[in-house]
Amino acid sequence: MPEYKAPLRDMQFVMQELLDCETHYQNLGYEDATPDMVNAIMAEAGKFTEEVIAPINQSGDEQGCKWEDGIVTTPDGFKEAYQQYVEGGWPTLSQPVEHGGQGLPHSINTAIGEFLSAANHSFAMYPGLSHGALATLEAHGTEEQKNMFMPKLVEGTWTGTMCLTEPHCGTDLGMLRTKAELNDDGSYSLTGTKIFISAGEHDLSDNIVHIVIARIPGSPAGTKGISLFVVPKFNATADGEKADRNGVNCGSIEHKMGIHANSTCVINFDGAKGYLIGEVNRGLNCMFTFMNAARLGVANEGVAAADAAFQGSLAYAQDRLQMRSLTGPKNPNGAADPIIVHPDVRRMLLTQKSIAEGGRALNGYLAQLVDIVEVEKDAAKRAEAESKLALLTPIAKAFLTELGLECTSHGVQVFGGHGFIKEWGMEQLMRDTKISCLYEGTTGIQALDLLARKILGSKGELIKPFAAEVTQFCTENVTDEQMSEFIKPMITIAPNWQKMTQEIGMKAMQNPDEIGAASVDYLMYSGYLTLAYFWAKMAKVAFTQLAEGTEDKAFYEAKIKTARFYFARILPRAHGHAACIENGADSMMAHDLEEFVF
Amino acid sequence: MPEYKAPLRDMQFVMQELLDCETHYQNLGYEDATPDMVNAIMAEAGKFTEEVIAPINQSGDEQGCKWEDGIVTTPDGFKEAYQQYVEGGWPTLSQPVEHGGQGLPHSINTAIGEFLSAANHSFAMYPGLSHGALATLEAHGTEEQKNMFMPKLVEGTWTGTMCLTEPHCGTDLGMLRTKAELNDDGSYSLTGTKIFISAGEHDLSDNIVHIVIARIPGSPAGTKGISLFVVPKFNATADGEKADRNGVNCGSIEHKMGIHANSTCVINFDGAKGYLIGEVNRGLNCMFTFMNAARLGVANEGVAAADAAFQGSLAYAQDRLQMRSLTGPKNPNGAADPIIVHPDVRRMLLTQKSIAEGGRALNGYLAQLVDIVEVEKDAAKRAEAESKLALLTPIAKAFLTELGLECTSHGVQVFGGHGFIKEWGMEQLMRDTKISCLYEGTTGIQALDLLARKILGSKGELIKPFAAEVTQFCTENVTDEQMSEFIKPMITIAPNWQKMTQEIGMKAMQNPDEIGAASVDYLMYSGYLTLAYFWAKMAKVAFTQLAEGTEDKAFYEAKIKTARFYFARILPRAHGHAACIENGADSMMAHDLEEFVF
Repeated sequence: MPEYKAPLRDMQFVMQELLDCETHYQNLGYEDATPDMVNAIMAEAGKFTEEVIAPINQSGDEQGCKWEDGIVTTPDGFKEAYQQYVEGGWPTLSQPVEHGGQGLPHSINTAIGEFLSAANHSFAMYPGLSHGALATLEAHGTEEQKNMFMPKLVEGTWTGTMCLTEPHCGTDLGMLRTKAELNDDGSYSLTGTKIFISAGEHDLSDNIVHIVIARIPGSPAGTKGISLFVVPKFNATADGEKADRNGVNCGSIEHKMGIHANSTCVINFDGAKGYLIGEVNRGLNCMFTFMNAARLGVANEGVAAADAAFQGSLAYAQDRLQMRSLTGPKNPNGAADPIIVHPDVRRMLLTQKSIAEGGRALNGYLAQLVDIVEVEKDAAKRAEAESKLALLTPIAKAFLTELGLECTSHGVQVFGGHGFIKEWGMEQLMRDTKISCLYEGTTGIQALDLLARKILGSKGELIKPFAAEVTQFCTENVTDEQMSEFIKPMITIAPNWQKMTQEIGMKAMQNPDEIGAASVDYLMYSGYLTLAYFWAKMAKVAFTQLAEGTEDKAFYEAKIKTARFYFARILPRAHGHAACIENGADSMMAHDLEEFVF
Repeated sequence: MPEYKAPLRDMQFVMQELLDCETHYQNLGYEDATPDMVNAIMAEAGKFTEEVIAPINQSGDEQGCKWEDGIVTTPDGFKEAYQQYVEGGWPTLSQPVEHGGQGLPHSINTAIGEFLSAANHSFAMYPGLSHGALATLEAHGTEEQKNMFMPKLVEGTWTGTMCLTEPHCGTDLGMLRTKAELNDDGSYSLTGTKIFISAGEHDLSDNIVHIVIARIPGSPAGTKGISLFVVPKFNATADGEKADRNGVNCGSIEHKMGIHANSTCVINFDGAKGYLIGEVNRGLNCMFTFMNAARLGVANEGVAAADAAFQGSLAYAQDRLQMRSLTGPKNPNGAADPIIVHPDVRRMLLTQKSIAEGGRALNGYLAQLVDIVEVEKDAAKRAEAESKLALLTPIAKAFLTELGLECTSHGVQVFGGHGFIKEWGMEQLMRDTKISCLYEGTTGIQALDLLARKILGSKGELIKPFAAEVTQFCTENVTDEQMSEFIKPMITIAPNWQKMTQEIGMKAMQNPDEIGAASVDYLMYSGYLTLAYFWAKMAKVAFTQLAEGTEDKAFYEAKIKTARFYFARILPRAHGHAACIENGADSMMAHDLEEFVF
């Protein structure tokens, strides 16, 4: 089993050197979040994930969750680990002080989220879902609801879920059937079946607070008739204590490809008491608070998977002796050279490394945008952050999870046949990570969100603030000779991005299917370009540090080398995607239904 | 669970219309292999795989093989199914008449192998390994060895294995430690431990015949001191009957990502009696007979996986209602449109379809080359076939399994969250298929075999016969207007292939690591180009049939549409690979060992 080490040095580089979180936190009034404090929290979080969470990852996969008579038991050690998580105060970190939180910025929590997920994807989902429930309550809940549910959720003794999917509808939520009937006391009675409810039932917490979408009888059909509710497993008193059992039951749990230690539940609402969140029939809008946060969380899982796969692969590649380097023995006294001498093994390792580090930078940047959206007082700054976040959320979610999956697949390949054996832990990473390409909207759905809803839907306006930032960076560095190897490809590719977008928009006016036909290639193209920007920015920081005579020379030199690898061997994939987009929708839509198989 | 349907119509198209197996078999003297006979065998094989083999695929995955005290029990139904397989005479099909076979051509067996593997990857491996053992014995065994082992192997009541890997060596077989000591009677005593032995121990057959590489004491170190042996689980009498137990024991079985129903064994040879195959210290050469056949078998698994994923995805995409087509409702009376109306779902389906059908054509072509190598009398024709086979075997093995894995991943995506749930069967395809990218030489090893050993090793000679065939096809069709959409891209890309090869060769003279750095991208590039050739050939057949007024119009029109999809949306990926190759090895080799992580 690969041993997990939290990437503290690189996280420090991203948060402090690349994204200057000191200034960022000061500007937003987070006075406690000094660099020293951030470092101390990261070190503690790293230790906790390495020592408590990582060791139950493989056993958790083996044992899985067990369902019996509606009760779900998590694998050995999960309950104790979660208790330590609560006792350590981790759930409270970035939660509001008035509900018992520590009031630290969101972005600190994002960094820890990556560690947790890399150490143990299944475990990380339990607190992850509580964050989503808390974000929804905080943004849209009444004071009464906040007092009932937030303190224990913040504390972590209660956990949360997100109940959207039903057997016949996942993407198409307008088809949902769960109904919510108004009671005399102003509460609602919810009846219906939800599926794929992660952490829907388990033994880690005293109570589970479900955020549920349902239809109030008489509401319009489709997405305009969806309302949002909070529905606890145990009812809560006005001051947030656990009361009697509510009509919420776990009908079964799914048997899945991966994330065996996270319960994926069928949840039956049987006249369960719930409370309306936000306005009637405006549930989807409120739900998007939850969804956007969740999507960024999933993007983080992609980075975590890439890093976990990298760590396992690197250790094995340094250890496993097999064949000689073509340029002469590198380990002449051994029976063979370690496989890390072979270029193709390095190709896989550096793919993992460049995606993990590049993705960490992108996610760190997005987390700072969330900080700004949450607390910045200047409306213009908030609006700019919102627009960048809207653009980059689907890119980060889909691109980083697809690449995360690829990195775990490379992880298996680096191990050769051993990668296929459970004992080594690499195949689990691949099985666990595949879910990240599916939940919170599949890659295809993210691509439509990006291209149809956001870019074409805003007539290209939404792309502008981020494009301006990239352009400014290129302009600022175009005369820097050291940077030209990065700036040159970017100033070739970036204008293509805008041109391509316009061309799709033109074609879509004739045939709306051109949007869907281009969407995933467009998202991937955008992802490769976006990561190129962050790699160029990181190279700039590294060059500057080296010029200033840093003591940590090797770190910055390695950063520049990895940037070069990304530009030389990963970014060129964008060409293939561009060519596919250019070829349009015709070949995709030509088959009649009966022509698919004979 | 997706229902498997053997692709009889498409297999007929490939074998009879594209590859004209009637003439091919007549030329080789296979007079019984008439088109009617081939059709009848395919229909029977289809029925058998659909009704007997496919139904135990999912339960086999769930139960897996069980090991207890050296005895391996296969999942429920496997023993009965294998017995039916033997009773049906399937193992004997393409085996020599003198040892009880039916003497039909190899390529018929290849077609059936695809059906078996698509229906049940784990099951298909048991007879697949027997074929390899038989091929080795037939090519290199003595008459005594053939009489001892072949009749029961042909019959199927005994099965075979291939024992190469040891704990410390997989790719690097020169490091092997298993030793073979000469006995007074001319036999050898083998001692050592082999791992990853597929079908190494099980309850399907009366005896298991292991083909084992080992070192005879005093032999040179490395690959020049490896000899090959046949070592049965039960000793055999001179006339091929089972005798006493030999010192061969199964120490344990592996717990794996997939192919749970195929036993992957640790096999301990404890002074086991074995017989030398071929000459002392020439074991690796003999082994390559086995390996090359096995690699083609694995290429077939890639196609099988793509087709199985396609079949599952297509059924779901036609059935699942979710959202409306952007060009207006296609199922106005239903709650939503079937998801097959959405372009991105079609992109995934057509990727699967174009890889399955294109790969089927490539594998069918390779199987005919094997027929020629086996029985053609004209040495020049045989040499040409051998050269094409040598070039295309690593391409087919690695490219088709990597694309097969991608297709199974699309299969999960088409199902959305349901794809992650075991019940639907899609995630099993992905788990099972990953092994095909690993065993019989990983993708990286195939790529080195192609570029280093075969292409650069022959100074480019080996590429010529196949390149000449492609060029001839392009020349013949360059004036055919209907074909120009396919010929034009090919005459752009094909010269690049040769130019790129020369450039790598030039760079490699300065730095041998350029070979490894280019290898996988080069193999993938070659794969996309090779499949383009087969798609163009298929389009040509379809155009011809349509021009001649076929009654099966829809089939041929669909074929042309799928060819267009391949050229528009799959082939352009080659551009990305070409750009990566061009960027060379430097960025891959720049990191010092201590610069990988901080």
